[in-house]
This record gives sequence, structure tokens and C-alpha cells, in this order.
Amino acid sequence: MKKENSAPTMKDVAREAGVALGTVSKVVNGIPVGDAYRVRVEEAIRKLNYQINSYAQGLKSNKTHTVALLIPNTQEPFYASLVYHINIALLKRKYRMLLCSTDYDSGLEQEYIAMAQQNKVDGIIGLTYNPGLVIEESTPFIAIDRSMRPNIPCVTSDNFAGGQLAAEKLADLGCRNVAFLRTGSSLSNEPNKRKAGFENGCLSRGLPYEMKIISDGDPYSEFEEFLASHIREGRLSFDGIFCVTDGLAYSIIKTLRKLNQKVPDDVQVIGFDGTRHFGNKDYTCSTIVQPVPEIAEMCVELLLQENMPSKPPLVCLPVTYAYGGTTLEAAPEKEER
Amino acid sequence: MKKENSAPTMKDVAREAGVALGTVSKVVNGIPVGDAYRVRVEEAIRKLNYQINSYAQGLKSNKTHTVALLIPNTQEPFYASLVYHINIALLKRKYRMLLCSTDYDSGLEQEYIAMAQQNKVDGIIGLTYNPGLVIEESTPFIAIDRSMRPNIPCVTSDNFAGGQLAAEKLADLGCRNVAFLRTGSSLSNEPNKRKAGFENGCLSRGLPYEMKIISDGDPYSEFEEFLASHIREGRLSFDGIFCVTDGLAYSIIKTLRKLNQKVPDDVQVIGFDGTRHFGNKDYTCSTIVQPVPEIAEMCVELLLQENMPSKPPLVCLPVTYAYGGTTLEAAPEKEER
Repeated sequence: MKKENSAPTMKDVAREAGVALGTVSKVVNGIPVGDAYRVRVEEAIRKLNYQINSYAQGLKSNKTHTVALLIPNTQEPFYASLVYHINIALLKRKYRMLLCSTDYDSGLEQEYIAMAQQNKVDGIIGLTYNPGLVIEESTPFIAIDRSMRPNIPCVTSDNFAGGQLAAEKLADLGCRNVAFLRTGSSLSNEPNKRKAGFENGCLSRGLPYEMKIISDGDPYSEFEEFLASHIREGRLSFDGIFCVTDGLAYSIIKTLRKLNQKVPDDVQVIGFDGTRHFGNKDYTCSTIVQPVPEIAEMCVELLLQENMPSKPPLVCLPVTYAYGGTTLEAAPEKEER
Repeated sequence: MKKENSAPTMKDVAREAGVALGTVSKVVNGIPVGDAYRVRVEEAIRKLNYQINSYAQGLKSNKTHTVALLIPNTQEPFYASLVYHINIALLKRKYRMLLCSTDYDSGLEQEYIAMAQQNKVDGIIGLTYNPGLVIEESTPFIAIDRSMRPNIPCVTSDNFAGGQLAAEKLADLGCRNVAFLRTGSSLSNEPNKRKAGFENGCLSRGLPYEMKIISDGDPYSEFEEFLASHIREGRLSFDGIFCVTDGLAYSIIKTLRKLNQKVPDDVQVIGFDGTRHFGNKDYTCSTIVQPVPEIAEMCVELLLQENMPSKPPLVCLPVTYAYGGTTLEAAPEKEER
């Protein structure tokens, strides 16, 4: 029996607004509903002086309104940007974010997954290359860049299209012989599709290409030797290079300089990620830009969408090309400082 | 009355090890104790099969083993590095970290402080320029870079010494007329001491200097105009410039290039922060390096040190100079890639 003076509940708000309880819940939790519904719910909340108490709600519904993010580190710019945008996407939905930088200790990842199983966090968003990770069926988990298992959605850039776009760009910019350079995890992962996309783009444009792929533990000097072995009479046989990340492109451009090859006049270089100096200034090189804010939003949406019976296994978001000084192209009219 | 088969408690471990309860607690919480004590406690834990349950402990002692970090964003490299090292310092002590990027909504900061007052987090580490922030006496809070009030420790680099070091370096490198350029918050804060340190260094070396200081909202073009107004017959009158951050140095170097001034041959530039390309490659410019891992450790140590009756109000940690290509100096023999 409800007491006369007890605090109004979400049910009272639903009755007052003439909407379903789920609609009130959505509005309270910042999940989009039709504007007309939202306005009615907000008016009812005001009229009844209903107090939104996400913590008390958490206790009742066994929710903590907390999500853990597993990410290798926050020092590499792509990761730093992901952390920032996921944090914003959660905070604006009144969710808190536990940060777990995992490259320090990959056993930590399993601890955070245990927390989710014990309802100490509502779910996990994770970018991880830990092959031994055990994730129970019931654990709400969204993966970035690497599919963990069929029922865990993986959110990523359209890496294949990005590789293809890089090849097409180099062809459009007049390249006649190009190379693809890659380093990274040998575990199956979405960014590996950049290679297939690049090959596809080269083949469709009739652009000859070579590949040099080294594994995570291999020394960088293998790239130096590869490039040096393609110099004849002081001139590199490649006039275009696609690097799997902007970070690799940075190192390759330094190596090219050491080998007396001018970028972009002798050889054009395209990276991948869309990294900017100091997070918000110029691009560090010409690059395929990952849609980081959209990746962040998609991860959070999918994680918090409880009533979705089957979530999409793989979501690929569109990439774009940006000029960053290492390709032959006019600089944009208004340069950012 | 203790049941025969109930799980062993921390008291049982203390009795078994023959040490004080506080010593067991320290070992369990990763706080340093003498090696001999640590070994005895660890052996007792193994013998009794004592289960360390930090969550249950949290409930008992009203501790959550969670600390919130308030920081403007994670995209600027200095902030990204702080987040990473504070995260590591907390994780290795079995503490969790809630991340709150505050430049999106400064009202959020007050919410996180309320969480600390309600024992939903054990304390807060915050880098904030929110002047209206209210922090109760009882809230465990460690500030970075800006003193909040007398009883809140502030951890920062030795900014004064850093400014002085920049001036002395420029003098050592042969500069005869230098400038200091600053932009940033007008609120009183520790990084502002870079200016006083620089002045002091110039005066002690008899090095003539000028200053151009603009506020956060002012347009960057004021620096361009300042520099352009100091060019006579194509030559800048300054042969050394100290910029308050590496981010500003990046923009200033671009402007100098536009004005046909060569760095470092015509004018040497020193920044502040110790920012590296991609977080771990070369320095972005010659720079005064902030000791970020040490700042992170100190913040966490001070926050978790409960039995310290009076915490230090201001802790300044030593900075160093690093060559980064924008001063006249031999590059280090082994370049990082």
C-alpha cells in the first residue's frame, strides 16, 4: 500500500504523463524518445517534483550506472581520443566510467570482467589484444577493433574501405609504384583489413604494389632495410607508401629523410588514424581519419541498449581522407594553428 | 562468537603472523612495510587461505577503493600522460579510477565532489580551473597545478625552476635578446610561476627579455602581431623564445616559419611539458620536462595516506631540460624513432 505522502515514483510519473513506464525510464536515462513524449514526461516530473536518483535506482535495479573501459594506454593519441570521447558519451548519459589501462598488466582485464559478472559495473567497453580473455555469455561487453566472440558486438572503422581509399588516393595523386607497411598484432583483428583493402584498391587501379609486414616483436630496422634495398642510384623505387598507422608513418618519414628521400616530392606517404598534433592542431601526416566520436557513441549506445534481442556482431563506421602535408596536394586554404 | 568453520579474518592473519592488524591491512592494501613483516603476513595469508576481498572490505570500512580523477580532457598530451600514470599508480595499489573529463561540463566536477562526500568514492585527484568549485573540509582531495585552499595539497612541477632553467639554457646557448610567450588561465595557478622563474633567470644572467602574455579567450593572432612587430629588415630581434607550453611552442614555430625565421638557426625555441610525438617518440620541441610519473605517484600517495595529520600544502617536483631539435645543440647520439 502506498502512503499518502511518500515520494513520487517513476510509475506516478508515467500515470501523470499518460505514457508507458519504459518511456519515463528512457527519458530519465537520457535515451532518445519522441519529442512530444519527452516534453510530457518532463512536465510530469516537474509537477510531481519527482527526484531522479540514479544511485538509488542503481540499488533497486541492480544497476551501478558505471561502465569500465579497458584500453592499452592513454598516451598514444588514437587511444587518448577514444578515452575522451567514450568518457563524454557516458557522462552525458549520467554514466560513470572506470578507466583501466591494461598494457601495464593484462591480468587486470579479467578482474574487470569479473566485476561486470558480479554487477559491480553494468558493462565493459574494451580494446584488448589479450588472447586468453574469458568473457561469459552474460557479460555485457562491446569490443573495439577486435571481435571477441559471436555474441559480442565489435565496433570499428571501415578498415577495408580505408585501405582501399589510401590506394585510390595514391593512384589519383599520380603514384606508379607503391608499398604497404604494417606492424602490429598477429591476432586476427579488424585493422588487419587495411591490407586487404589496399591490395584491392591497387588491383582495381592497376597500381603495382609491394608489402612489408612485420610482427609486434620484430625490430623496426626491418623497415629501414626494406626501404634501403629499394633504392637504386639514390632513388626509391616507390613513389607512394601507405602505413598502417600515423605512428608508423611518423617513423617511416624520419627514415625516408635519413635515406635522402623527400616527402612528398619523391615519395608520398599516407597514414591511418587521423592523429592531430597536440590532440587538436594539424594532422600529423596525410591520413585516413577514423571517426572516433562516432565509434565512441556507437559503443555506448550498443552497450546500454538492453532491449535489443540480437545486437549487430560487427559495426564498421565510415572513414575519410585528410590532407596532412605528406602527399602532393594543395594545403587547405585556412590552416589550423 | 566466531564459528568454527567461518572464513579467516584479517585478525586471524595478524595473530598467525604475529604482527599488528594495521600491518596486515597495509600488506593487503599494497602499502609498503618492512620486507620481513610483508613475508610473514603473506605466509599467514597463504596458510589460512585468507581471501582478500577488497569489495567486502570496502563495505565494512566504508571504503570503495575507488578514486575519481577530474581532468579537462585526455586529448592534450600532457593530460593524456597524467591520466595514464595516475591510472597505473592507482591500479597497482588495487584502486579503481573513475575518469571525469570536465571541459565538457564543469558542473560535473561538483557532482564528483558530492560523490566523495557521500563515500561513493574515497577521494578525488583534480586538475581544474573551475573557480566556483566548493570542496568541503572533509573531502579527500589532491589538486594538480592549482592550489584550491590551504588544507588541500597541491602537486605540481617546480614551475619557477623550470622557467629559470629555460632562461639559463637560452643564455648558455648564446642568446642575447629573448622573449617569453604565455597564454592560459588568468586564475592564480602554479604554472604561472614559469614567468617569474624566467624573469629571474634572465636578470641573473643579464639577458634582455620581453614578455607577451595573452589570456585564454584572446586570439592567437596577438602573438603573430607581436612577433611581426619585432622584425627589422627581415630579421627577428629575438634570438630565443620561451613558450609556456609545448603546444604553444608548436604554434609559434609555425608562425616563425611563416615569417621566414629559421628555427633554431635564427631563433631558438624552448617549450614546457616534455611532450613527445605519439606519446613515446621524439620530443615535439626542446622543452622543460615535467616529471609526470612522479607527479602521479605523489598525488596517489598523498591521497591514500590517511594517517598523515598535516599534509604538505604544496609539493613541487624537479624538472629537467631536454633537447628536441629547436635549440642549437647536438642531437643525442642515439635518436629514438
